[in-house]
Amino acid sequence: MRDLKAAIRTVPNFPKPGVQYRDITTLLADPEALAESVKRLAAPYRDAGLTAVAGIDARGFIFGTAVAIELGVGFIPVRKAGKLPFETLEQDYALEYGRDTLQIHADAADAGDKVLLVDDLIATGGTAGAAVSLLRRTGCEVVGAAFLVDLPDLGGADLIKAMDVPVTSLVAFEGD
Amino acid sequence: MRDLKAAIRTVPNFPKPGVQYRDITTLLADPEALAESVKRLAAPYRDAGLTAVAGIDARGFIFGTAVAIELGVGFIPVRKAGKLPFETLEQDYALEYGRDTLQIHADAADAGDKVLLVDDLIATGGTAGAAVSLLRRTGCEVVGAAFLVDLPDLGGADLIKAMDVPVTSLVAFEGD
Repeated sequence: MRDLKAAIRTVPNFPKPGVQYRDITTLLADPEALAESVKRLAAPYRDAGLTAVAGIDARGFIFGTAVAIELGVGFIPVRKAGKLPFETLEQDYALEYGRDTLQIHADAADAGDKVLLVDDLIATGGTAGAAVSLLRRTGCEVVGAAFLVDLPDLGGADLIKAMDVPVTSLVAFEGD
Repeated sequence: MRDLKAAIRTVPNFPKPGVQYRDITTLLADPEALAESVKRLAAPYRDAGLTAVAGIDARGFIFGTAVAIELGVGFIPVRKAGKLPFETLEQDYALEYGRDTLQIHADAADAGDKVLLVDDLIATGGTAGAAVSLLRRTGCEVVGAAFLVDLPDLGGADLIKAMDVPVTSLVAFEGD
């Protein structure tokens, strides 16, 4: 098994002084680390009866589609506002400064669906929590949330678990 | 072989009156159409000696990573400005109204690399052309550009071919 953590580069002081940015582009550039990441993101959910994987615009698309194909299901893009052409549902959420909005197509899922949320990284969980709320408004069940990287000190995984969604992650950076 | 064109929904008058928007979310939601799209995007490049696939922020990430895994290579994200933490190269380009900027990490590729550009759709080719120029500045060879959807009347594929990059696509909508 590859050491995925070692494939992630840390860039100090991005996007602002004092932040240690966990840069996954070095992992993406490594064919074995990339393929293994997708297999390990999918592994806990092989017998979960999933009907779809959802990924959050933009970096959640990087792993989301690949995990969907690995699990033999379809992919639901959760997008920033104004990008989806059909009837949408939307969810407002707080950022560090200000607010933002996520949208999905109203017909992206329904009461019969079991959906796995995938993103590259969970920090405070604000965006992932908004995506869970949004998906639930279609009537679907969110059966889990899978992240490549967890920054546990920022509490995002705990926030998602408090929404009754199981969380899995492959790599944790403590002290962030 | 699936009729991928039939899996794409057309939404009239988005993002503005008179535009027929080709909505791939219905294809993404269909597990078989999604998996087949990735295999057919990859197929022409199996013996091309690729070292990486590049995808353009945000919808190019949807297929890019999956095609990279299918071909056993790494993935290079071409991003909107301000998203990449390490040393970057950037390329300005024209939009219908105004300008925008793409960036890649300066160490994303080098003179030994053979890169396939992947995106979901090519229209006027402005963004894809900027991505080709940007990738070439690393010294790499751009061996092809693969799109799910081509809108040939908008001339984008011709523009990319005029840059000496072969273009492949799976579905064409004429009259757009």
